[in-house]
Amino acid sequence: MTDSKGLFISFEGIDGSGKSTQARLLAERLRAKGREVVLTREPGGSPGAEEIRALVLQGDPDRWSAETELLLFTAARRDHLERTIAPALARGATVICDRFADSTRMYQGLSRGDLRAVVDQLHELMIGVEPDLTLLIDMEPRAALTRAKARATAEERFEDFGLDLQVRMREGFLSLAREFPDRFRVIDGDTSPEAVAQEVDAALQAPA
Amino acid sequence: MTDSKGLFISFEGIDGSGKSTQARLLAERLRAKGREVVLTREPGGSPGAEEIRALVLQGDPDRWSAETELLLFTAARRDHLERTIAPALARGATVICDRFADSTRMYQGLSRGDLRAVVDQLHELMIGVEPDLTLLIDMEPRAALTRAKARATAEERFEDFGLDLQVRMREGFLSLAREFPDRFRVIDGDTSPEAVAQEVDAALQAPA
Repeated sequence: MTDSKGLFISFEGIDGSGKSTQARLLAERLRAKGREVVLTREPGGSPGAEEIRALVLQGDPDRWSAETELLLFTAARRDHLERTIAPALARGATVICDRFADSTRMYQGLSRGDLRAVVDQLHELMIGVEPDLTLLIDMEPRAALTRAKARATAEERFEDFGLDLQVRMREGFLSLAREFPDRFRVIDGDTSPEAVAQEVDAALQAPA
Repeated sequence: MTDSKGLFISFEGIDGSGKSTQARLLAERLRAKGREVVLTREPGGSPGAEEIRALVLQGDPDRWSAETELLLFTAARRDHLERTIAPALARGATVICDRFADSTRMYQGLSRGDLRAVVDQLHELMIGVEPDLTLLIDMEPRAALTRAKARATAEERFEDFGLDLQVRMREGFLSLAREFPDRFRVIDGDTSPEAVAQEVDAALQAPA
Protein backbone atom coordinates (compact mmCIF):
# COMPACT_ATOMS: atom_id res chain seq x y z
CA MET A 1 0.00 0.00 0.00
CA THR A 2 2.86 2.39 0.69
CA ASP A 3 4.66 1.68 -2.57
CA SER A 4 3.71 4.95 -4.22
CA LYS A 5 5.12 7.52 -6.61
CA GLY A 6 2.72 10.30 -5.63
CA LEU A 7 2.53 12.70 -2.69
CA PHE A 8 0.02 12.22 0.12
CA ILE A 9 -0.95 15.43 1.95
CA SER A 10 -3.51 15.62 4.76
CA PHE A 11 -5.13 18.70 6.26
CA GLU A 12 -6.13 18.68 9.92
CA GLY A 13 -7.59 21.30 12.22
CA ILE A 14 -10.52 22.10 14.49
CA ASP A 15 -13.94 22.78 13.00
CA GLY A 16 -14.04 26.20 11.40
CA SER A 17 -10.26 26.42 11.04
CA GLY A 18 -10.53 26.74 7.27
CA LYS A 19 -8.77 23.44 6.50
CA SER A 20 -11.35 22.35 3.91
CA THR A 21 -11.07 25.68 2.11
CA GLN A 22 -7.28 25.48 2.17
CA ALA A 23 -7.34 21.88 0.89
CA ARG A 24 -9.50 22.98 -2.05
CA LEU A 25 -7.36 26.05 -2.77
CA LEU A 26 -4.17 23.96 -2.75
CA ALA A 27 -5.76 21.47 -5.14
CA GLU A 28 -6.65 24.34 -7.49
CA ARG A 29 -3.12 25.79 -7.38
CA LEU A 30 -1.48 22.42 -8.07
CA ARG A 31 -3.90 21.64 -10.91
CA ALA A 32 -3.15 25.03 -12.43
CA LYS A 33 0.49 23.90 -12.56
CA GLY A 34 -0.58 20.76 -14.43
CA ARG A 35 -0.36 18.27 -11.55
CA GLU A 36 -2.97 15.53 -11.21
CA VAL A 37 -4.66 16.09 -7.84
CA VAL A 38 -7.18 13.87 -6.06
CA LEU A 39 -9.02 15.97 -3.46
CA THR A 40 -10.79 13.75 -0.96
CA ARG A 41 -12.00 13.74 2.64
CA GLU A 42 -12.68 11.56 5.65
CA PRO A 43 -14.77 10.01 6.94
CA GLY A 44 -15.82 8.94 3.45
CA GLY A 45 -13.92 9.49 0.22
CA SER A 46 -15.05 6.34 -1.64
CA PRO A 47 -18.59 5.03 -2.29
CA GLY A 48 -18.26 2.27 0.32
CA ALA A 49 -16.66 4.57 2.89
CA GLU A 50 -19.45 7.11 2.39
CA GLU A 51 -22.00 4.38 3.19
CA ILE A 52 -20.12 3.49 6.37
CA ARG A 53 -19.89 7.21 7.24
CA ALA A 54 -23.66 7.50 6.96
CA LEU A 55 -24.12 4.44 9.19
CA VAL A 56 -21.87 5.97 11.88
CA LEU A 57 -23.07 9.57 11.78
CA GLN A 58 -26.82 9.08 11.43
CA GLY A 59 -29.09 8.24 14.35
CA ASP A 60 -28.53 8.39 18.09
CA PRO A 61 -24.96 9.54 18.91
CA ASP A 62 -24.75 6.83 21.58
CA ARG A 63 -25.78 3.97 19.34
CA TRP A 64 -22.16 2.84 18.87
CA SER A 65 -19.51 2.42 21.55
CA ALA A 66 -16.12 4.09 21.08
CA GLU A 67 -14.62 0.73 20.08
CA THR A 68 -17.31 -0.12 17.52
CA GLU A 69 -17.13 3.37 16.05
CA LEU A 70 -13.36 3.02 15.79
CA LEU A 71 -13.78 -0.25 13.87
CA LEU A 72 -16.35 1.30 11.53
CA PHE A 73 -14.16 4.33 10.81
CA THR A 74 -11.19 2.02 10.23
CA ALA A 75 -13.27 -0.02 7.77
CA ALA A 76 -14.18 3.22 5.97
CA ARG A 77 -10.52 4.32 5.96
CA ARG A 78 -9.41 0.96 4.57
CA ASP A 79 -11.93 1.20 1.72
CA HIS A 80 -10.97 4.84 1.06
CA LEU A 81 -7.28 3.88 1.01
CA GLU A 82 -7.79 0.93 -1.35
CA ARG A 83 -10.23 2.52 -3.77
CA THR A 84 -9.19 6.17 -3.83
CA ILE A 85 -5.86 7.02 -2.17
CA ALA A 86 -3.55 4.11 -3.07
CA PRO A 87 -4.49 3.94 -6.79
CA ALA A 88 -3.97 7.72 -7.12
CA LEU A 89 -0.58 7.58 -5.39
CA ALA A 90 0.45 4.58 -7.50
CA ARG A 91 -0.07 6.53 -10.72
CA GLY A 92 1.88 9.49 -9.34
CA ALA A 93 -0.96 11.83 -8.43
CA THR A 94 -0.99 14.18 -5.45
CA VAL A 95 -3.65 13.17 -2.92
CA ILE A 96 -5.02 15.93 -0.70
CA CYS A 97 -7.15 14.54 2.09
CA ASP A 98 -9.33 16.65 4.37
CA ARG A 99 -8.78 14.76 7.67
CA PHE A 100 -7.07 11.37 7.96
CA ALA A 101 -5.98 9.13 10.85
CA ASP A 102 -4.83 12.06 13.01
CA SER A 103 -8.46 13.15 13.36
CA THR A 104 -9.29 9.71 14.76
CA ARG A 105 -6.36 9.93 17.18
CA MET A 106 -7.43 13.41 18.29
CA TYR A 107 -11.13 12.58 18.79
CA GLN A 108 -10.41 9.32 20.61
CA GLY A 109 -7.87 11.14 22.76
CA LEU A 110 -10.58 13.57 23.87
CA SER A 111 -13.39 11.12 24.50
CA ARG A 112 -11.57 7.91 25.40
CA GLY A 113 -7.88 8.67 25.92
CA ASP A 114 -7.40 5.16 27.31
CA LEU A 115 -8.00 3.82 23.79
CA ARG A 116 -4.97 5.51 22.23
CA ALA A 117 -2.90 2.29 22.26
CA VAL A 118 -5.79 0.41 20.61
CA VAL A 119 -6.16 3.16 18.00
CA ASP A 120 -2.46 2.91 17.16
CA GLN A 121 -2.41 -0.90 17.02
CA LEU A 122 -5.52 -1.01 14.83
CA HIS A 123 -4.02 1.59 12.49
CA GLU A 124 -0.76 -0.33 12.27
CA LEU A 125 -2.57 -3.62 11.60
CA MET A 126 -5.19 -2.50 9.05
CA ILE A 127 -4.05 0.83 7.54
CA GLY A 128 -0.28 1.17 7.95
CA VAL A 129 -0.03 4.38 5.92
CA GLU A 130 0.65 7.94 7.07
CA PRO A 131 0.59 11.10 4.95
CA ASP A 132 3.92 12.36 3.65
CA LEU A 133 2.93 15.79 4.94
CA THR A 134 0.23 16.83 7.41
CA LEU A 135 -0.77 20.49 7.43
CA LEU A 136 -2.37 21.49 10.71
CA ILE A 137 -4.33 24.72 10.31
CA ASP A 138 -4.13 26.04 13.85
CA MET A 139 -6.63 28.68 14.91
CA GLU A 140 -7.97 30.52 17.91
CA PRO A 141 -10.88 28.33 19.09
CA ARG A 142 -13.49 31.08 19.59
CA ALA A 143 -13.16 32.46 16.07
CA ALA A 144 -13.17 28.94 14.61
CA LEU A 145 -16.29 28.04 16.56
CA THR A 146 -18.18 31.09 15.29
CA ARG A 147 -17.27 30.09 11.74
CA ALA A 148 -18.19 26.40 12.27
CA LYS A 149 -21.57 27.21 13.80
CA ALA A 150 -22.48 29.48 10.88
CA ARG A 151 -22.40 26.53 8.50
CA ALA A 152 -23.34 23.57 10.72
CA THR A 153 -25.89 21.10 9.41
CA ALA A 154 -27.83 18.48 11.28
CA GLU A 155 -25.60 15.72 9.93
CA GLU A 156 -22.43 17.13 11.44
CA ARG A 157 -22.82 15.85 14.94
CA PHE A 158 -19.05 15.91 15.45
CA GLU A 159 -19.16 19.66 15.04
CA ASP A 160 -21.92 20.22 17.55
CA PHE A 161 -19.50 21.15 20.26
CA GLY A 162 -18.92 24.08 22.58
CA LEU A 163 -15.92 26.34 23.08
CA ASP A 164 -14.37 24.19 25.80
CA LEU A 165 -14.26 21.23 23.44
CA GLN A 166 -12.81 23.35 20.64
CA VAL A 167 -10.00 24.36 23.03
CA ARG A 168 -9.33 20.73 23.88
CA MET A 169 -9.43 19.65 20.20
CA ARG A 170 -6.90 22.36 19.34
CA GLU A 171 -4.58 21.14 22.09
CA GLY A 172 -5.07 17.55 20.88
CA PHE A 173 -3.93 18.44 17.38
CA LEU A 174 -0.96 20.49 18.65
CA SER A 175 0.02 17.52 20.79
CA LEU A 176 0.00 15.26 17.71
CA ALA A 177 2.13 17.83 15.86
CA ARG A 178 4.70 17.58 18.65
CA GLU A 179 4.50 13.78 18.54
CA PHE A 180 5.07 13.53 14.77
CA PRO A 181 7.32 16.51 13.96
CA ASP A 182 8.71 14.89 10.80
CA ARG A 183 5.47 15.07 8.86
CA PHE A 184 3.45 17.77 10.69
CA ARG A 185 3.62 21.46 9.81
CA VAL A 186 1.62 23.87 11.98
CA ILE A 187 0.17 26.77 10.04
CA ASP A 188 -1.31 29.91 11.59
CA GLY A 189 -4.96 29.95 10.51
CA ASP A 190 -5.84 33.26 12.18
CA THR A 191 -4.74 35.36 9.22
CA SER A 192 -6.41 35.84 5.83
CA PRO A 193 -7.09 32.86 3.52
CA GLU A 194 -4.46 34.25 1.13
CA ALA A 195 -1.82 34.46 3.85
CA VAL A 196 -2.64 30.91 5.01
CA ALA A 197 -2.35 29.69 1.42
CA GLN A 198 1.12 31.24 1.23
CA GLU A 199 2.15 29.38 4.38
CA VAL A 200 0.77 26.16 2.86
CA ASP A 201 2.87 26.67 -0.25
CA ALA A 202 5.95 27.37 1.87
CA ALA A 203 5.40 24.10 3.77
CA LEU A 204 5.24 22.23 0.46
CA GLN A 205 8.47 23.81 -0.73
CA ALA A 206 10.29 22.54 2.35
CA PRO A 207 8.59 19.18 2.79
CA ALA A 208 9.18 16.70 5.55
CA MET B 1 -15.78 -8.34 28.92
CA THR B 2 -14.81 -11.85 30.01
CA ASP B 3 -15.85 -11.34 33.63
CA SER B 4 -19.01 -13.42 33.39
CA LYS B 5 -21.10 -15.78 35.46
CA GLY B 6 -22.95 -17.34 32.51
CA LEU B 7 -22.05 -19.95 29.92
CA PHE B 8 -21.19 -18.98 26.34
CA ILE B 9 -21.88 -21.71 23.74
CA SER B 10 -21.36 -21.33 20.00
CA PHE B 11 -22.58 -23.59 17.21
CA GLU B 12 -20.50 -23.88 14.05
CA GLY B 13 -20.87 -25.97 10.92
CA ILE B 14 -21.20 -25.81 7.16
CA ASP B 15 -24.40 -24.55 5.58
CA GLY B 16 -27.16 -27.15 5.88
CA SER B 17 -25.46 -28.96 8.78
CA GLY B 18 -28.42 -28.33 11.05
CA LYS B 19 -26.50 -26.10 13.49
CA SER B 20 -29.25 -23.44 13.63
CA THR B 21 -31.88 -26.09 14.35
CA GLN B 22 -29.71 -27.62 17.06
CA ALA B 23 -29.01 -24.20 18.60
CA ARG B 24 -32.76 -23.58 18.82
CA LEU B 25 -33.51 -27.05 20.20
CA LEU B 26 -30.83 -26.68 22.88
CA ALA B 27 -32.25 -23.29 23.88
CA GLU B 28 -35.69 -24.88 24.24
CA ARG B 29 -34.37 -27.76 26.37
CA LEU B 30 -32.44 -25.43 28.70
CA ARG B 31 -35.41 -23.07 29.06
CA ALA B 32 -37.62 -26.04 29.91
CA LYS B 33 -35.22 -26.66 32.81
CA GLY B 34 -35.71 -23.06 33.97
CA ARG B 35 -32.41 -21.61 32.70
CA GLU B 36 -32.36 -18.13 31.16
CA VAL B 37 -31.13 -18.56 27.59
CA VAL B 38 -30.22 -15.88 25.05
CA LEU B 39 -30.33 -17.41 21.56
CA THR B 40 -28.50 -15.24 19.06
CA ARG B 41 -26.61 -15.43 15.77
CA GLU B 42 -23.84 -13.85 13.72
CA PRO B 43 -23.36 -11.84 11.69
CA GLY B 44 -25.92 -9.72 13.50
CA GLY B 45 -27.44 -10.37 16.91
CA SER B 46 -27.94 -6.74 18.02
CA PRO B 47 -29.72 -3.88 16.22
CA GLY B 48 -26.45 -2.17 15.26
CA ALA B 49 -24.80 -5.42 14.18
CA GLU B 50 -27.82 -6.26 12.02
CA GLU B 51 -27.39 -2.92 10.24
CA ILE B 52 -23.71 -3.65 9.62
CA ARG B 53 -24.65 -7.17 8.43
CA ALA B 54 -27.02 -5.66 5.87
CA LEU B 55 -24.30 -3.26 4.68
CA VAL B 56 -21.88 -6.16 4.14
CA LEU B 57 -24.23 -8.71 2.61
CA GLN B 58 -26.27 -6.51 0.28
CA GLY B 59 -25.05 -5.39 -3.11
CA ASP B 60 -22.16 -6.55 -5.28
CA PRO B 61 -20.17 -9.34 -3.53
CA ASP B 62 -16.92 -7.63 -4.62
CA ARG B 63 -17.77 -4.21 -3.24
CA TRP B 64 -15.65 -4.77 -0.11
CA SER B 65 -12.12 -6.16 0.05
CA ALA B 66 -11.38 -9.04 2.42
CA GLU B 67 -9.75 -6.60 4.86
CA THR B 68 -12.64 -4.11 4.85
CA GLU B 69 -15.18 -6.92 5.23
CA LEU B 70 -13.15 -8.26 8.16
CA LEU B 71 -13.27 -4.84 9.84
CA LEU B 72 -17.02 -4.53 9.27
CA PHE B 73 -17.71 -8.00 10.67
CA THR B 74 -15.48 -7.22 13.66
CA ALA B 75 -17.43 -4.00 14.25
CA ALA B 76 -20.66 -6.02 14.15
CA ARG B 77 -19.19 -8.62 16.53
CA ARG B 78 -18.03 -5.92 18.95
CA ASP B 79 -21.54 -4.41 19.02
CA HIS B 80 -23.13 -7.84 19.41
CA LEU B 81 -20.74 -8.66 22.25
CA GLU B 82 -21.34 -5.38 24.09
CA ARG B 83 -25.10 -5.14 23.67
CA THR B 84 -26.24 -8.77 23.68
CA ILE B 85 -23.66 -11.35 24.77
CA ALA B 86 -21.72 -9.67 27.60
CA PRO B 87 -24.78 -8.31 29.47
CA ALA B 88 -26.44 -11.76 29.29
CA LEU B 89 -23.33 -13.54 30.57
CA ALA B 90 -22.91 -10.93 33.34
CA ARG B 91 -26.36 -11.73 34.73
CA GLY B 92 -25.66 -15.47 34.59
CA ALA B 93 -27.62 -16.41 31.47
CA THR B 94 -26.58 -19.06 28.96
CA VAL B 95 -25.77 -17.52 25.58
CA ILE B 96 -26.20 -19.77 22.54
CA CYS B 97 -24.73 -18.19 19.44
CA ASP B 98 -25.26 -19.52 15.90
CA ARG B 99 -21.76 -18.81 14.48
CA PHE B 100 -19.09 -16.71 16.18
CA ALA B 101 -15.44 -15.86 15.47
CA ASP B 102 -14.62 -19.38 14.23
CA SER B 103 -16.82 -18.76 11.19
CA THR B 104 -14.72 -15.69 10.38
CA ARG B 105 -11.52 -17.72 10.78
CA MET B 106 -12.88 -20.48 8.56
CA TYR B 107 -14.17 -18.21 5.76
CA GLN B 108 -11.00 -16.09 5.72
CA GLY B 109 -8.93 -19.26 5.68
CA LEU B 110 -10.72 -20.37 2.52
CA SER B 111 -10.68 -17.11 0.61
CA ARG B 112 -7.61 -15.31 1.96
CA GLY B 113 -5.57 -17.76 4.05
CA ASP B 114 -2.74 -15.22 4.19
CA LEU B 115 -4.95 -13.04 6.40
CA ARG B 116 -5.17 -15.53 9.26
CA ALA B 117 -2.59 -13.70 11.38
CA VAL B 118 -4.45 -10.41 10.83
CA VAL B 119 -7.76 -12.10 11.75
CA ASP B 120 -6.24 -13.37 14.99
CA GLN B 121 -4.59 -10.06 15.91
CA LEU B 122 -7.77 -8.12 15.20
CA HIS B 123 -9.80 -10.56 17.30
CA GLU B 124 -7.32 -10.30 20.17
CA LEU B 125 -7.29 -6.50 20.02
CA MET B 126 -11.02 -5.75 19.64
CA ILE B 127 -12.97 -8.84 20.79
CA GLY B 128 -10.79 -10.93 23.10
CA VAL B 129 -13.56 -13.39 24.00
CA GLU B 130 -13.98 -17.03 22.97
CA PRO B 131 -16.96 -19.27 23.72
CA ASP B 132 -16.65 -21.60 26.70
CA LEU B 133 -17.83 -24.41 24.43
CA THR B 134 -18.00 -24.61 20.63
CA LEU B 135 -20.19 -27.35 19.16
CA LEU B 136 -19.18 -28.18 15.61
CA ILE B 137 -22.00 -30.02 13.83
CA ASP B 138 -19.97 -32.00 11.32
CA MET B 139 -21.78 -33.37 8.29
CA GLU B 140 -21.22 -35.01 4.93
CA PRO B 141 -20.97 -32.04 2.53
CA ARG B 142 -23.27 -33.36 -0.24
CA ALA B 143 -26.22 -33.95 2.09
CA ALA B 144 -25.66 -30.59 3.79
CA LEU B 145 -25.56 -28.81 0.45
CA THR B 146 -28.86 -30.33 -0.65
CA ARG B 147 -30.43 -29.13 2.58
CA ALA B 148 -28.89 -25.65 2.34
CA LYS B 149 -30.03 -25.14 -1.25
CA ALA B 150 -33.59 -26.07 -0.39
CA ARG B 151 -33.90 -23.05 1.89
CA ALA B 152 -31.49 -20.54 0.32
CA THR B 153 -32.67 -16.97 -0.07
CA ALA B 154 -31.23 -14.21 -2.19
CA GLU B 155 -29.71 -12.53 0.87
CA GLU B 156 -27.57 -15.51 1.81
CA ARG B 157 -24.73 -14.97 -0.58
CA PHE B 158 -22.33 -16.79 1.75
CA GLU B 159 -24.37 -19.92 1.22
CA ASP B 160 -24.35 -19.68 -2.56
CA PHE B 161 -21.55 -22.16 -2.89
CA GLY B 162 -20.92 -25.44 -4.64
CA LEU B 163 -19.96 -28.86 -3.35
CA ASP B 164 -16.23 -28.28 -3.64
CA LEU B 165 -16.49 -25.27 -1.37
CA GLN B 166 -18.66 -27.18 1.13
CA VAL B 167 -15.90 -29.81 1.28
CA ARG B 168 -13.28 -27.14 1.95
CA MET B 169 -15.45 -25.41 4.56
CA ARG B 170 -15.92 -28.70 6.40
CA GLU B 171 -12.17 -29.28 6.43
CA GLY B 172 -11.65 -25.69 7.62
CA PHE B 173 -13.92 -26.24 10.63
CA LEU B 174 -12.35 -29.61 11.46
CA SER B 175 -8.95 -27.94 11.32
CA LEU B 176 -10.13 -25.33 13.84
CA ALA B 177 -11.44 -28.11 16.09
CA ARG B 178 -7.94 -29.65 16.06
CA GLU B 179 -6.41 -26.22 16.76
CA PHE B 180 -8.66 -25.48 19.77
CA PRO B 181 -9.36 -28.90 21.31
CA ASP B 182 -10.12 -27.45 24.76
CA ARG B 183 -13.33 -25.73 23.73
CA PHE B 184 -14.37 -27.57 20.51
CA ARG B 185 -16.56 -30.66 20.47
CA VAL B 186 -17.19 -32.31 17.10
CA ILE B 187 -20.68 -33.77 16.79
CA ASP B 188 -21.81 -36.16 14.05
CA GLY B 189 -24.57 -34.32 12.19
CA ASP B 190 -25.36 -37.16 9.75
CA THR B 191 -27.80 -38.83 12.11
CA SER B 192 -31.34 -37.78 13.10
CA PRO B 193 -31.98 -34.42 14.79
CA GLU B 194 -32.89 -36.30 17.96
CA ALA B 195 -29.61 -38.23 17.97
CA VAL B 196 -27.65 -35.04 17.32
CA ALA B 197 -29.47 -33.36 20.21
CA GLN B 198 -28.44 -36.23 22.49
CA GLU B 199 -24.81 -35.73 21.48
CA VAL B 200 -25.16 -32.00 22.18
CA ASP B 201 -26.47 -32.74 25.67
CA ALA B 202 -23.61 -35.17 26.27
CA ALA B 203 -21.08 -32.49 25.26
CA LEU B 204 -22.65 -30.09 27.75
CA GLN B 205 -22.49 -32.65 30.54
CA ALA B 206 -18.73 -33.01 30.03
CA PRO B 207 -17.79 -29.44 29.20
CA ALA B 208 -14.37 -28.13 28.32
